[in-house]
Amino acid sequence: MPEDEFVVTPWRTEGQIDYDRLIERFGTERITDELKSRLFRLAGEDHYMVRRSIFFSHRDLGSILDRYESGQKFFLYTGRGPSGHTHIGHLLPWVFAKWLQDKFDVKMYFQLTDDEKFFSKGALEMGDATQYALENALDFVALGFKPRNTRIIIDTRNIRTLYPIAAQVAKRLNFSNTKAVFGFTNETNLGMIFYTSLQSAPCFLEDDPVLIPLGVDQDPHFRLTRDVAPKIGRHKPALMHNVMMPALEGPGGKMSASSETGTIYTIDTPAQVRKKIGNAFSGGQPDKEQHRRLGGDPDVDVSYQYLRMFFEPDDAKLRKIHDDYRSGKMLTGELKSILIEKINAFLEVHQARREEARDALGEFLLEDDGNDRLGNGGTDSSSDGNR
Amino acid sequence: MPEDEFVVTPWRTEGQIDYDRLIERFGTERITDELKSRLFRLAGEDHYMVRRSIFFSHRDLGSILDRYESGQKFFLYTGRGPSGHTHIGHLLPWVFAKWLQDKFDVKMYFQLTDDEKFFSKGALEMGDATQYALENALDFVALGFKPRNTRIIIDTRNIRTLYPIAAQVAKRLNFSNTKAVFGFTNETNLGMIFYTSLQSAPCFLEDDPVLIPLGVDQDPHFRLTRDVAPKIGRHKPALMHNVMMPALEGPGGKMSASSETGTIYTIDTPAQVRKKIGNAFSGGQPDKEQHRRLGGDPDVDVSYQYLRMFFEPDDAKLRKIHDDYRSGKMLTGELKSILIEKINAFLEVHQARREEARDALGEFLLEDDGNDRLGNGGTDSSSDGNR
Repeated sequence: MPEDEFVVTPWRTEGQIDYDRLIERFGTERITDELKSRLFRLAGEDHYMVRRSIFFSHRDLGSILDRYESGQKFFLYTGRGPSGHTHIGHLLPWVFAKWLQDKFDVKMYFQLTDDEKFFSKGALEMGDATQYALENALDFVALGFKPRNTRIIIDTRNIRTLYPIAAQVAKRLNFSNTKAVFGFTNETNLGMIFYTSLQSAPCFLEDDPVLIPLGVDQDPHFRLTRDVAPKIGRHKPALMHNVMMPALEGPGGKMSASSETGTIYTIDTPAQVRKKIGNAFSGGQPDKEQHRRLGGDPDVDVSYQYLRMFFEPDDAKLRKIHDDYRSGKMLTGELKSILIEKINAFLEVHQARREEARDALGEFLLEDDGNDRLGNGGTDSSSDGNR
Repeated sequence: MPEDEFVVTPWRTEGQIDYDRLIERFGTERITDELKSRLFRLAGEDHYMVRRSIFFSHRDLGSILDRYESGQKFFLYTGRGPSGHTHIGHLLPWVFAKWLQDKFDVKMYFQLTDDEKFFSKGALEMGDATQYALENALDFVALGFKPRNTRIIIDTRNIRTLYPIAAQVAKRLNFSNTKAVFGFTNETNLGMIFYTSLQSAPCFLEDDPVLIPLGVDQDPHFRLTRDVAPKIGRHKPALMHNVMMPALEGPGGKMSASSETGTIYTIDTPAQVRKKIGNAFSGGQPDKEQHRRLGGDPDVDVSYQYLRMFFEPDDAKLRKIHDDYRSGKMLTGELKSILIEKINAFLEVHQARREEARDALGEFLLEDDGNDRLGNGGTDSSSDGNR
């Protein structure tokens, strides 16, 4: 693969991603400063992930905001493929979705695609994928979602709800479509070929249009969903894409739940975090003397990028870290210490909430009677009283 | 298509089928006289559909009988794609399955593939397919099955039970496999591509091996199932194939539920039956005088074939009709009168039982809790006491 080449699909990310070129390649829209301002004005608040273009691209976000301004609702949907424990890269769109839910008072569906991971990972058993789904769900609940306006979908447990909708999509997509969008071949298994229909299904659980905050690698699925939507008389899903959080090994890939050492899991201990970040790829110089003289490169430094993308919402503080690291005033060890402290502080709270979530989980899981929708009453009820 | 060519797939049958060549093409085994005798000996009774080679071909029937002789169980499974009302051609494998169930005291699953018909028929809505499934189920129940040892599966209503099994199959089949077996193309929709996994699923509902009596056009599905079975540690399904009942228009196709006039529906009135059989393709001569002199051709005469395949189980009576028609002693009108009387007598009883089945249907429908299996206790219970 030439140095300037990269691959982004739902199942494989390779090379150094050029996000400007990805926007062209995928045919999405950049989130412009004007659109950012409009979003912040309607939300009544800024969000650092949008300010910093961590969410950098979209489809039809403007239409969703148009509707909202005219008093019409939308709902949120995102998800996760449960091939292992949750890592902090997964949390990125979930945290942003929580902010959107709070600011716009909207309903939220969260899909755990145990079947997809079973189909795409040769050695993974379905039962193990479903177990991971239940574990991942705890991380989602731990972020503060409420059962009043949030449902969690696990594909194999909610197939009765999903399948009739997926079937409507599946009838209107053919093998050529999946070849063009995913690069499927004659050797692709039947589960993988059908699966995109199931990832489309939650888009149509409610009558309102959906807005999906998600990693940009998942965009191809919804390109197909958007082609089908008008054919079944439904709204096209709108999307907001975030960049991929880099692996601890540095640029050239996304954080993967399958790589033990390349990833910070939400269940990692403080010592594990210290060790992993200690070994993380750095933009610093080979020794202290050189670093003081030449400075570091925050653009490639994984620790700095984690602060920028997730752990340091304060722009002024981030700016100072950036400038000090760039100038050589801040050493790599100091930068890493800041991040380690931030991660461990976050995980201490997160892990406590994650344990509490075990009891609450049942309230979030979608009933598979085919009728469990949050519906229009969802956001008006105050039955759980704790929001 | 040259005159000697024919097409047999689950979704299309065309041309005059040469069943000897079909055995070669599909790679099945002929049901030999020896195998027939063995089946009849174990059943304790003959069956005219086997005697007359209406069931003409099989896969692994011998292994099922070996198991049975050594005291091991098997179970039965057949089904129907509910694209319209039931016609008498559909009843053929169901009637034979009932006989097998009675003689071998085995469990039976009956699958109604509403999703398949939705995927394969452009204009058909899923809700309509499901409605036809419920109507078709009445015809099945009317044949005398008992809920003690019989369950009816409707794909969209039992997807929670089917999907986890289908997923195991889908992971081990690829697009090439479906191209080779069904002739799928890049334009085939995703529902159709995945669907064969769902038709495979009932084969694995029980631990025992399954025997499937079915129209030979459905064989391709189970060729794939048989390839997958050992990979998931399960028994290969065994099959008994029946020939396709010809359309009223005569040789060159199977009776189709989509062709109003080519078919005798189980809900037809006596007058409709008279009219349809009156217009049916005949092997007789253009006028009475010629017929008396030259005789008719029972091999192509639709009325004679219906008697042979379904409505006249008595070999001696059938032989006399054959010989009298061949010699010219029996006129086409007389032959048709015999058939009309037989059909209407059958339908009078069937339609009454079909109405009674409305109340009983609920007991037959598989509960979709994922645990409703007939299990080993199924055939030992005598709770319904009416067998």
